[in-house]
Amino acid sequence: MKIKDIYDYLDSLSPFDLQEKWDNSGLVVGSFEEEVKKVYISIDLDEELLSNMEENSLVITHHPLIFSPLKRVNFDSYSTKLLRTLIQKNISLISMHTNIDKTHLNKYVGKDILGLNLENSEEYISYAKVNSSFDKFCEEISKKLNIEELKFVKCSDEVKRVALVTGAGMSMISEVKADCFLTGDIKYHDAMDAKTRGISLIDIRHYESECHFTELLYSLIEKYLKKNKLTAIMANSKNPFSFYNTRRNG
Amino acid sequence: MKIKDIYDYLDSLSPFDLQEKWDNSGLVVGSFEEEVKKVYISIDLDEELLSNMEENSLVITHHPLIFSPLKRVNFDSYSTKLLRTLIQKNISLISMHTNIDKTHLNKYVGKDILGLNLENSEEYISYAKVNSSFDKFCEEISKKLNIEELKFVKCSDEVKRVALVTGAGMSMISEVKADCFLTGDIKYHDAMDAKTRGISLIDIRHYESECHFTELLYSLIEKYLKKNKLTAIMANSKNPFSFYNTRRNG
Amino acid sequence: MKIKDIYDYLDSLSPFDLQEKWDNSGLVVGSFEEEVKKVYISIDLDEELLSNMEENSLVITHHPLIFSPLKRVNFDSYSTKLLRTLIQKNISLISMHTNIDKTHLNKYVGKDILGLNLENSEEYISYAKVNSSFDKFCEEISKKLNIEELKFVKCSDEVKRVALVTGAGMSMISEVKADCFLTGDIKYHDAMDAKTRGISLIDIRHYESECHFTELLYSLIEKYLKKNKLTAIMANSKNPFSFYNTRRNG
Amino acid sequence: MKIKDIYDYLDSLSPFDLQEKWDNSGLVVGSFEEEVKKVYISIDLDEELLSNMEENSLVITHHPLIFSPLKRVNFDSYSTKLLRTLIQKNISLISMHTNIDKTHLNKYVGKDILGLNLENSEEYISYAKVNSSFDKFCEEISKKLNIEELKFVKCSDEVKRVALVTGAGMSMISEVKADCFLTGDIKYHDAMDAKTRGISLIDIRHYESECHFTELLYSLIEKYLKKNKLTAIMANSKNPFSFYNTRRNG
Amino acid sequence: MKIKDIYDYLDSLSPFDLQEKWDNSGLVVGSFEEEVKKVYISIDLDEELLSNMEENSLVITHHPLIFSPLKRVNFDSYSTKLLRTLIQKNISLISMHTNIDKTHLNKYVGKDILGLNLENSEEYISYAKVNSSFDKFCEEISKKLNIEELKFVKCSDEVKRVALVTGAGMSMISEVKADCFLTGDIKYHDAMDAKTRGISLIDIRHYESECHFTELLYSLIEKYLKKNKLTAIMANSKNPFSFYNTRRNG
Amino acid sequence: MKIKDIYDYLDSLSPFDLQEKWDNSGLVVGSFEEEVKKVYISIDLDEELLSNMEENSLVITHHPLIFSPLKRVNFDSYSTKLLRTLIQKNISLISMHTNIDKTHLNKYVGKDILGLNLENSEEYISYAKVNSSFDKFCEEISKKLNIEELKFVKCSDEVKRVALVTGAGMSMISEVKADCFLTGDIKYHDAMDAKTRGISLIDIRHYESECHFTELLYSLIEKYLKKNKLTAIMANSKNPFSFYNTRRNG
Repeated sequence: MKIKDIYDYLDSLSPFDLQEKWDNSGLVVGSFEEEVKKVYISIDLDEELLSNMEENSLVITHHPLIFSPLKRVNFDSYSTKLLRTLIQKNISLISMHTNIDKTHLNKYVGKDILGLNLENSEEYISYAKVNSSFDKFCEEISKKLNIEELKFVKCSDEVKRVALVTGAGMSMISEVKADCFLTGDIKYHDAMDAKTRGISLIDIRHYESECHFTELLYSLIEKYLKKNKLTAIMANSKNPFSFYNTRRNG
Repeated sequence: MKIKDIYDYLDSLSPFDLQEKWDNSGLVVGSFEEEVKKVYISIDLDEELLSNMEENSLVITHHPLIFSPLKRVNFDSYSTKLLRTLIQKNISLISMHTNIDKTHLNKYVGKDILGLNLENSEEYISYAKVNSSFDKFCEEISKKLNIEELKFVKCSDEVKRVALVTGAGMSMISEVKADCFLTGDIKYHDAMDAKTRGISLIDIRHYESECHFTELLYSLIEKYLKKNKLTAIMANSKNPFSFYNTRRNG
Repeated sequence: MKIKDIYDYLDSLSPFDLQEKWDNSGLVVGSFEEEVKKVYISIDLDEELLSNMEENSLVITHHPLIFSPLKRVNFDSYSTKLLRTLIQKNISLISMHTNIDKTHLNKYVGKDILGLNLENSEEYISYAKVNSSFDKFCEEISKKLNIEELKFVKCSDEVKRVALVTGAGMSMISEVKADCFLTGDIKYHDAMDAKTRGISLIDIRHYESECHFTELLYSLIEKYLKKNKLTAIMANSKNPFSFYNTRRNG
Repeated sequence: MKIKDIYDYLDSLSPFDLQEKWDNSGLVVGSFEEEVKKVYISIDLDEELLSNMEENSLVITHHPLIFSPLKRVNFDSYSTKLLRTLIQKNISLISMHTNIDKTHLNKYVGKDILGLNLENSEEYISYAKVNSSFDKFCEEISKKLNIEELKFVKCSDEVKRVALVTGAGMSMISEVKADCFLTGDIKYHDAMDAKTRGISLIDIRHYESECHFTELLYSLIEKYLKKNKLTAIMANSKNPFSFYNTRRNG
Repeated sequence: MKIKDIYDYLDSLSPFDLQEKWDNSGLVVGSFEEEVKKVYISIDLDEELLSNMEENSLVITHHPLIFSPLKRVNFDSYSTKLLRTLIQKNISLISMHTNIDKTHLNKYVGKDILGLNLENSEEYISYAKVNSSFDKFCEEISKKLNIEELKFVKCSDEVKRVALVTGAGMSMISEVKADCFLTGDIKYHDAMDAKTRGISLIDIRHYESECHFTELLYSLIEKYLKKNKLTAIMANSKNPFSFYNTRRNG
Repeated sequence: MKIKDIYDYLDSLSPFDLQEKWDNSGLVVGSFEEEVKKVYISIDLDEELLSNMEENSLVITHHPLIFSPLKRVNFDSYSTKLLRTLIQKNISLISMHTNIDKTHLNKYVGKDILGLNLENSEEYISYAKVNSSFDKFCEEISKKLNIEELKFVKCSDEVKRVALVTGAGMSMISEVKADCFLTGDIKYHDAMDAKTRGISLIDIRHYESECHFTELLYSLIEKYLKKNKLTAIMANSKNPFSFYNTRRNG
């Protein structure tokens, strides 16, 4: 099967034209005319994952490998180092980023992973009524995402309505209409701002909130690939972060 | 004493002209002609801290209250909400940000707080030889900064040479010449990049690595203020983040 | 009554979305949730006017107090000095600028103040047939606007068709389809250009041509405010300009 | 004599390289190799002035004819209409604008025309001690510039120190260190700002404050031109503004 | 007849609004109110052509005389030198550039000059099936355009489908869907790129491929002008390039 | 030998810091730590040349492979297609472009290839006195560069002083102080402009004028490489252009 055919199927599920201007979703590395047999799905690429992939295959990631356009290919950065291996093994790369955020991923994580009762969803933000104590809600979230130490900003003891943006969503804080905001990669100044606005924050982390892309996309394309004699493989890259806990490790 | 005089003394310690173009260090709120008796020092402002300050005083913070210029003053964001209280209580605000990062803060944290043996320092980056196991080094850092759960990216079992940037320094990763980088506010894509470059990361957090601004500046200006009959008060704003740990809280 | 309700009523009269990109009409200072009892209307703010206003009130001006976004609030410029008083007295500020220019103000001044027979109006320009001698037309305009010394550029002895833009409209000269243009703040180079184009100019001044905003808006919202138990007050700021005339004063 | 030689002499008096980036001083129309016999000097060009000039001559103006670069030459604007006549009569044009503002014009007007006791001069601003009543000072200025009705903003009854910028200088208000500022083309918002800053303004008008360029340059180059058998002619364009005064005309 | 009337007729044939943003089609020099009797048509202007034109006439060119806006009119460049003569002889200039490229010129050259069997045409690109040997196709093209030495990049021995853009079209290479591309002004790096893409190139030159504008426009407007008692004259400027051939000249 | 060592030697010959801002000279593909044995030198890369190179080697070209930064690596353009082969064969690429233009190439071509008597050289332009008939000078140039059909614009029968810029230098026409300009890639509008300026042009073509980079660099680095046991190989990519001549081929 040609990459063009797989690309067209993905486009029918979640149109690439929906992506933001600054995004780079689509066929990032490789040629539409290439024939592939194996299709890997992963939130991202890393060296270990790539070393285990078969040559002449296709990998579909959530995040595009190339964000800042490349003027030098010196194998010293994330993009250029992995680009080399992709080319050496003739592996093609399609990324589905802000398009699938809008059409599937945010809602899937809210409903199927976090078990929230979603009420409505805007482009990147999903909303749910919660009505629970803040501490209890933290406990639930930490269990569902398997996060041992949950970082948060607490503005009140009760959570009434939450807003959810998987990945790194703090740039949307001024649009949030909720008393608690779940998103990842929350920085210090973001926290100071939210605290003053009176909006509680729970950091659901970038990797932990988006690694579900893999199972989600698998469920969306498995049948189609099978029918076309292609094997789909769920193969997430590793979370780059580890944690040293003085209580546990000390 | 007039604010102009205090400003000039601060400028002699750490020239405001050293700040970056995008920075907003200097007299952010208030007038040079104002007379003050009390001087507070804090990494930042928050509502509780401000409510405890006396009227007609001066506060010196590390981070400027205003970063993005204001077109609307609607009391709904960090900057505009606290600006209102500053004006209502006639409290003036001077910020010393990238100028003191360069002249004092980074080196002070490396040497006096983390106990590192600094070898050399560039504009924002300080370097030290370590030669320790990565795990042991993490243990030390977590103790010295009082961080219960330390986030890290581990690329090798030994740490030979560390680079240090207090606050949020990941934009400098391509200049770092060390096998381990200590900085705060490390995001997921930063971690993926560093891992591929083979540079270990230890997240020393923004607040925990820079709240030492307060004691540092106090020690630099206390005598001068006393001589001029002014009271200097160390009065840090609170860390906006709390942590829920399944082991501890669960 | 909440400011949000008053804002919505103003928006129904003259939608804030009609404003130009560079404009800053809307709620410039204050919060939508604030309750107010008194509403002042003025072309602009000045210190005397503000000192006479009651605390916790709302003022609606034609020109936004903030045009260039603020990075420093040092009480040394028009915007920051008056912003301080607004905050100290908890007075909110809504501005209706280019939106009401388009929907009401220009036509109102043309018809009700200058007594012109308006034929058609584009976005910011209103047209009228005149057919009078230039000198006589000047006499009428000076009377109606109460301008003792009228500045003009005379290209012919007759005025056939006039174009009107209140405020400062010389940037629109190339669109004007008339033999005489009435607008304010006419600069020397503007006059040289118009003279070469053969378009006469009469300087109706910025303040004198737009202070009518106050009575206009009063007439538009008085009933609504009364019904809601609010007092509307016409309270123009002063014209900053005075004139020394060698004939009169000398 | 070739235009290049005259240009070089002017450049030795007031280097063209001193001009601002946005300025267009220098040889604006014509060729350096052209031979000329007659040299006219004027603050600006207008149609009447041009119609009286001899063919194949040179005119030196203060303001450059072309400011915004031309994409269409349709003879419907100041620049393109006069450009046509210049070319038809083969008249060349040199402009000396911000370079001579800095080197001669501002100081000349301050000292020789206004009779001020200049203390020091920055790039575009000259300063003088005055110590007079504001009203009396207005009277003097109006006499010296022959302005019948003088527009002003009065912030206090006494004038201690004045700053002077001929032409249109209000963009420099934040640099002015004086209690009274003399400049031309003062707009309404400029006046509101100055009033709040407590800086009085006297509008010395653009034409009235800069038409002295003609006599100044004449005195600077007359001898040199004579020696080279060239005739220099003072020939100001007309002030485009006239005034209708209800007292005088009504 | 007024230029405005001729302009309107041209606009009805090929709307000026179709031009690209960077283009300068329309009335480039002259006034809409001018009366003319003679209309010249030419791909461009040059000094010889202009010297032969009658005064008070109109010339319609393909390329606008002014591309980069003019800040100085020093008669030392193509635009300013010819502008002088246009003004001295009171000749007006209308240019029809990217608008007529889109509506007529490209298709006319493809069909009537090159004798191609056009299949479909996009904005600037026309396509035709060819099915000939590359060498033979070159022979035909060189005959039809009267080009003695034809420059080409040959990627295969057969030509199946050609794309045509008259003038300088290499910036469109990535949109071309053909195995051979005919356009002019092909530069070295363009050739390297096309060769790697496997797209053959034949350089049909800028002048040789677009000088047909003259006969084309003549046929489109002759009747209309005649009816209005105007004379239309085909009067191409000369090709600036000549060729020295070692075989012929050596 | 490491690429870093070769890079440093090249930098000592012609500092990479001399390059223009828009240029991309330096190590474009590969890592400084790579060990190489063979060094190829070529004006550019093409597929045939690359297919003949040994793996794990280094190639030094005049033109950087990457000009516009890459967001997609789809193997459909010159840059991305050849980048793939470079990576697959582990061949590194250093480019020396505007730096060597300035320090060596332009002067070398003027003196050693064209046999001109260079008088002086500015950054990119070299000058020589010629004093010959234009036709005879064309004959010489065509022989020395081996160009069968030479394209030119002839403004006078004699050539007195020539300016030379190898590659594509027409953007510098306004700085040229000579009656004849030698450069490559001359486009139609360039020719129209030069003709009006009275400057003759001879198109020495991009490839034909710069392929001498190869022999030049070879002579500069051969000894150094030999001493370090490296083989240097002159291996120019092919000229992409061919020519069909009706006289010769017809």
